[in-house]
Amino acid sequence: LKIDEVKVFYLKVPKILDIGDGSQDMCLIQVRSGEHVGWGEAEGSPITCIASMYTPFSHSGCHPVIDSVLRMPINATSDIIHISELVRKNSFYGLLQSDITFSGVEIALWDLLGKIKGEPVWRMLGYKKSYPKLPYASVLFGETPADTFDKASKISKNGFAAVKFGWGPYGRGTAAEDGDHVHAARSGIGSDAHLLIDAGTVFGEDVDAAAARLPALESAGVLFFEEPFKATAFGAYDKLSKLSKKVRLAGGEGSHNPHQAFNLIDYGGVGFVQIDAGYVGGIHNSYRIAQYAESKNVQFVNHTFTSNLTLSSSLQGYVGLENHWLSEYPTELSSLASEITINHIVVNSDGYIQVPDAPGLGMQINEDTVRKYKVDVELTVGGKLLYETPSV
Amino acid sequence: LKIDEVKVFYLKVPKILDIGDGSQDMCLIQVRSGEHVGWGEAEGSPITCIASMYTPFSHSGCHPVIDSVLRMPINATSDIIHISELVRKNSFYGLLQSDITFSGVEIALWDLLGKIKGEPVWRMLGYKKSYPKLPYASVLFGETPADTFDKASKISKNGFAAVKFGWGPYGRGTAAEDGDHVHAARSGIGSDAHLLIDAGTVFGEDVDAAAARLPALESAGVLFFEEPFKATAFGAYDKLSKLSKKVRLAGGEGSHNPHQAFNLIDYGGVGFVQIDAGYVGGIHNSYRIAQYAESKNVQFVNHTFTSNLTLSSSLQGYVGLENHWLSEYPTELSSLASEITINHIVVNSDGYIQVPDAPGLGMQINEDTVRKYKVDVELTVGGKLLYETPSV
Repeated sequence: LKIDEVKVFYLKVPKILDIGDGSQDMCLIQVRSGEHVGWGEAEGSPITCIASMYTPFSHSGCHPVIDSVLRMPINATSDIIHISELVRKNSFYGLLQSDITFSGVEIALWDLLGKIKGEPVWRMLGYKKSYPKLPYASVLFGETPADTFDKASKISKNGFAAVKFGWGPYGRGTAAEDGDHVHAARSGIGSDAHLLIDAGTVFGEDVDAAAARLPALESAGVLFFEEPFKATAFGAYDKLSKLSKKVRLAGGEGSHNPHQAFNLIDYGGVGFVQIDAGYVGGIHNSYRIAQYAESKNVQFVNHTFTSNLTLSSSLQGYVGLENHWLSEYPTELSSLASEITINHIVVNSDGYIQVPDAPGLGMQINEDTVRKYKVDVELTVGGKLLYETPSV
Repeated sequence: LKIDEVKVFYLKVPKILDIGDGSQDMCLIQVRSGEHVGWGEAEGSPITCIASMYTPFSHSGCHPVIDSVLRMPINATSDIIHISELVRKNSFYGLLQSDITFSGVEIALWDLLGKIKGEPVWRMLGYKKSYPKLPYASVLFGETPADTFDKASKISKNGFAAVKFGWGPYGRGTAAEDGDHVHAARSGIGSDAHLLIDAGTVFGEDVDAAAARLPALESAGVLFFEEPFKATAFGAYDKLSKLSKKVRLAGGEGSHNPHQAFNLIDYGGVGFVQIDAGYVGGIHNSYRIAQYAESKNVQFVNHTFTSNLTLSSSLQGYVGLENHWLSEYPTELSSLASEITINHIVVNSDGYIQVPDAPGLGMQINEDTVRKYKVDVELTVGGKLLYETPSV
């Protein structure tokens, strides 16, 4: 079997708001081999992804991603790994953002191969069993501590035993104001639930500013403190991890490849590594990082803020590891992210989630949703139409 | 003064060859404030850069780069740094490749401000003096050792006291074949010249494969061994650096921001850090890395494989540091890269080069060349023309 067709769609909600919600648009990728179809989502700017997919080539290390994918064999998992290596060789990661663009393709290829083989992706990765994960609701801080408290109370009533608050005002005011938000979150969710805080890289590389937040995090019993710094500021992560008594640091969503995550583990002193399959180069890279984390006594957690298609993709790489028990579970999806799949990964009565035991990623794409939200794009270079939005 | 206009051009030679020559096309950026004009080059896929410059926004961390640049004040160097910070905040580096795209803008802003102030960029960075640098000719290996010998002999006759060979067949055959190329290069340039070897990340993360090349490098008296591994494989760099007796490792061209270069210095054990201003986020980031390298006893070297506009940009950040004496000097420029500037940074009779002591980057852009090589691009999203190639 060969990859007969690749389609890229730019989908968006009618009005995108200037808030930290990455589910407002989507770079959706479909791959087809004969009658089999696979779907994936790349977690980057869709138009930039389209450009790196279809641009004319610049030199031997700067080919459009599509050149390494179309018409390639797709019969075994090794074919997917081979295509990944080709993309790395032909489209150096930085020059045209190929890691993000290819992430969506790679995910779609696993979905496709799983459907061809009638196997879930996690089984094709070698896992014997898929363990349930404890989902943490991932929400934005409220504008005021009172708003945060209200959000926390509501989330708690929805049955989540773990909640992460992030972004919004956090780190933009004083440490005392941030502490008020953290304590409001703890009051709202109750003393038994796991509380996680996401600083969204707001402190840049300022260890003192981040350290000033530690006492409130410690006293509120926070499990992990996510991305206080830029993804690459390992020295800052390492210093803060040594200043923290109980709260462990988390990071890794900014990893474009396994090495960036390995380095964060080795040099940044994090206790949790958070990986987005739609950003790190795909499912196999997230699997490699999960294996590395396991060997280093670091807990792997998926990073997901968009659709259930992406949630399933980001779970596949570590569902076979029983000790890695947490999962990021977005609860404030845009209409697009919610409607893109017909089925959903729901929280079971015991409070846990599980990836579907079904071929590929186990998610059914709603093609009516693709038609409803797709935006027409045309890219013309030198009078030649290199890309136009395909039909569904 | 404000930034009144930003123009982005995709330039290319008529026929791009599938070889490792990044000067075959160009993402050229012009910024204008009143009657003053500055120019810069972004070292990435031009169409991908255009997309990240003009895409519709996705969320608060994924705005098009242009939004943080146009109509901003440009009166002092702090204004450029402020714009950089805005881009980082509004356009997270990975999501839309903003580091590379903005590199070209930032370089153009320094050129513009230098012309407004009547000062060379290096003086605006705080350097009192611009020191001459010893240029190394940067060329591709020949197809066979005999070809490499011929290339080396010719380069040597052109008066270069340092030559770097890279890419081509290196690392794709046996260690013995690679050794033959290295010794052919040494024979061709003679025993007194500095010989540098660039592996172009060919060994991925395979320390053994790279280590098998060390004996030939040592016996040929190679000064540095560049990028044996992927940019982020710090562990591999560190291991190889400890296996090497005399040859020092070099790397860093893959750095998108200062931290990636700091990390390579801190964890990778390199002796030389090579930075491309058109890739690392611009001139101020390369200046920060040069200062860091100086403090860590590592030698800073520009990474340049394209035009003299880029050469001048990549020299500015370290020309004031006397001990950092090497410079990468491309000698196999495409017609585009050669013709884009009216004046050139030439090798003086003493074998050294010097950046122009003239306002901005000191390079005059040939607007006829822009007209000759520009390719018409149109990007339409949702029926709206977001970008079309501007007039010169």
